[in-house]
Amino acid sequence: MTPLITLTTDFGSGSSYVAQLHGMIYSRLPNARIVDVAHDLPPFDIAAAELLLRSTAFAFPLGTTHVVVIDPGVGSDRRAIAVAAGGMTFVGPDNGVFGGIIARVPAQVVKLDRPEFFAPTLSSTFHGRDIFAPVAAELAAGLPLGEVGTPVADPAPSTLPGPKLATGVCTGETLGADRFGNVTTNLAARVLQAHLGPPPWRVMVNGVELPWVRTYEGAPEGLVALVGSDGYLEIALRQGSAASRLGRAVGIEVVCIPPSGDRVTETDET
Amino acid sequence: MTPLITLTTDFGSGSSYVAQLHGMIYSRLPNARIVDVAHDLPPFDIAAAELLLRSTAFAFPLGTTHVVVIDPGVGSDRRAIAVAAGGMTFVGPDNGVFGGIIARVPAQVVKLDRPEFFAPTLSSTFHGRDIFAPVAAELAAGLPLGEVGTPVADPAPSTLPGPKLATGVCTGETLGADRFGNVTTNLAARVLQAHLGPPPWRVMVNGVELPWVRTYEGAPEGLVALVGSDGYLEIALRQGSAASRLGRAVGIEVVCIPPSGDRVTETDET
Amino acid sequence: MTPLITLTTDFGSGSSYVAQLHGMIYSRLPNARIVDVAHDLPPFDIAAAELLLRSTAFAFPLGTTHVVVIDPGVGSDRRAIAVAAGGMTFVGPDNGVFGGIIARVPAQVVKLDRPEFFAPTLSSTFHGRDIFAPVAAELAAGLPLGEVGTPVADPAPSTLPGPKLATGVCTGETLGADRFGNVTTNLAARVLQAHLGPPPWRVMVNGVELPWVRTYEGAPEGLVALVGSDGYLEIALRQGSAASRLGRAVGIEVVCIPPSGDRVTETDET
Repeated sequence: MTPLITLTTDFGSGSSYVAQLHGMIYSRLPNARIVDVAHDLPPFDIAAAELLLRSTAFAFPLGTTHVVVIDPGVGSDRRAIAVAAGGMTFVGPDNGVFGGIIARVPAQVVKLDRPEFFAPTLSSTFHGRDIFAPVAAELAAGLPLGEVGTPVADPAPSTLPGPKLATGVCTGETLGADRFGNVTTNLAARVLQAHLGPPPWRVMVNGVELPWVRTYEGAPEGLVALVGSDGYLEIALRQGSAASRLGRAVGIEVVCIPPSGDRVTETDET
Repeated sequence: MTPLITLTTDFGSGSSYVAQLHGMIYSRLPNARIVDVAHDLPPFDIAAAELLLRSTAFAFPLGTTHVVVIDPGVGSDRRAIAVAAGGMTFVGPDNGVFGGIIARVPAQVVKLDRPEFFAPTLSSTFHGRDIFAPVAAELAAGLPLGEVGTPVADPAPSTLPGPKLATGVCTGETLGADRFGNVTTNLAARVLQAHLGPPPWRVMVNGVELPWVRTYEGAPEGLVALVGSDGYLEIALRQGSAASRLGRAVGIEVVCIPPSGDRVTETDET
Repeated sequence: MTPLITLTTDFGSGSSYVAQLHGMIYSRLPNARIVDVAHDLPPFDIAAAELLLRSTAFAFPLGTTHVVVIDPGVGSDRRAIAVAAGGMTFVGPDNGVFGGIIARVPAQVVKLDRPEFFAPTLSSTFHGRDIFAPVAAELAAGLPLGEVGTPVADPAPSTLPGPKLATGVCTGETLGADRFGNVTTNLAARVLQAHLGPPPWRVMVNGVELPWVRTYEGAPEGLVALVGSDGYLEIALRQGSAASRLGRAVGIEVVCIPPSGDRVTETDET
């Protein structure tokens, strides 16, 4: 079986840093297969990386090793960790980027404190190349997680805002947009189903109820709500950008109630 | 032999969608080799994808599977198809992107209507992941085209404009520019040769005849005409951008006549 | 052992040219592993490619073949070369991009003059596909360098400016910035150590001495100097862009002296 390693960073596509990650991994694990998930995340944007990981990590074959390096704290005493969760392995700085996965799935977390698995000389500014890539290569090659570090009981929590969930009403917020302007949220369809019953749900944004649709095609004019391909509530605009229509993609409140529920209005909230 | 799969989409480099395509393909076909041809095509720009396919598809080894997903109609009743043509396999929405190849090369086309080859649960908005990637993996693994769908007699035609061809005069148009500003056209050198005899040809753009050259180097000042590396008539500007000089890259008329031909002037046209 | 080939060009990510390189390499060497180092270098910027190569080439496993095609002179009589140096192989136009490596490491250089290794038909404008990719595939497959061409005694020299080195004072300049604004220089730490003794050194930029640090984290306010992860003197700004603070990233003089040295001031220079 070819070991599969994915890379998600803010190093910049075409940078020497990304090439050096590849070089280090192939040096340690010549038969690795590397997938560049993203390298142009906004610098230091841990939340963006976590959001990307949410919809990509479990799209890969079981056993994949995911390296995620958004590392504003390189050179500080922030921990380097590896995580085994849901049949996948994750490697990166302990900055919360794995917090959501650790909270949702039983996880084993270790602090990377065994220099014998690092690069022979350790730079102060590029732990992606010197710690995370070589350790990922070892783990992808089959080394058990427990071999590369010491158990950690308190990994950093997710930096993404969580939804407020109650039977009959779930309140979340928008987290970001894709290239087409479709806006995703922190409201998982399976979670909404548990609290509100089966879809469709009534979805309110900025005090306005959005029509519920199953697909972009055939949607009415204006903003609509649907379950996105990643299983989260999504806001879309037919043949247009919901993000542009909303004015921004992050931090807009989204309220969901069952089809039979009373409409939650702005005045209900105050 | 390692199965080779290329990906051409408008999903956006670094998006979760591209990563999910990789994940799905590797899940179905762990020894696949994936080439990301382009993911930043203008959203919904089918013509741009077809133009890219024109110069790349047959640059790969015979047996390569090309996945091309520009899919404004996802969720509608547009067909999903696979095409065998010229020793290559193509998979994507039936939106005309394969129309040029089907018109030029004997082709077998099937509609993808066998859900046993799709993802177990089918989203309404992401057929790239749920239909095209898994079917491509099956085809790349060696499944015959006839197994994945039902024959189609009327695939969508090319959306690129065709040239007007006659003995002694061929009229085409510009289709787009590369990063250096070199502008390509819909006039294939082999087609021009069939109608005009061997090069050089006299090339008129905006009523002006362009000098004919063999290479960018040594070209005179100003716009020139040459056969581009993909075998199509190209307009270039030495050490500069022909697209900028022309004002745009798409939709400019180009008239070609034999060296012995009379110059076609604007007044000849009216 | 899987043959590893890296690609560095100014062809543009997502261009047909990059895809055609992949297609040609896989056609010649189906089990190649290809790493796209960069394709969005500024058009014709040989110095940018050489700078990138400086920190990436030797990060790959010994035996890697590096293809670097920045080729403003395609179609002219500029030579096509291959270089064996430091256990790596390099292929590209003889434009100086390999000059720095050839100057630092014992190197064997040949001119690619054996058309039997080229594409069957040679375009005038795309030697990346027609010469460099197929020759790289042959070399990566194990063909000795001497088989693909004739020895060259005078390869083009580096286009990067060299530092002025003397015992007690080394004067260099900035060469470029990464995505975070960290600015690199032409002053290698090992060279500084040979002339100035061990670090820390006193570093002067624009007549101001910069604090010396080991890592971005914990750096004081303002510009600082450190040894970057590639072993060269680097100028950084904590949580900010040194390039922005300096006003530009290229061509700023940097003077280094030993810790015991007298401060070199602007007036000393005049």
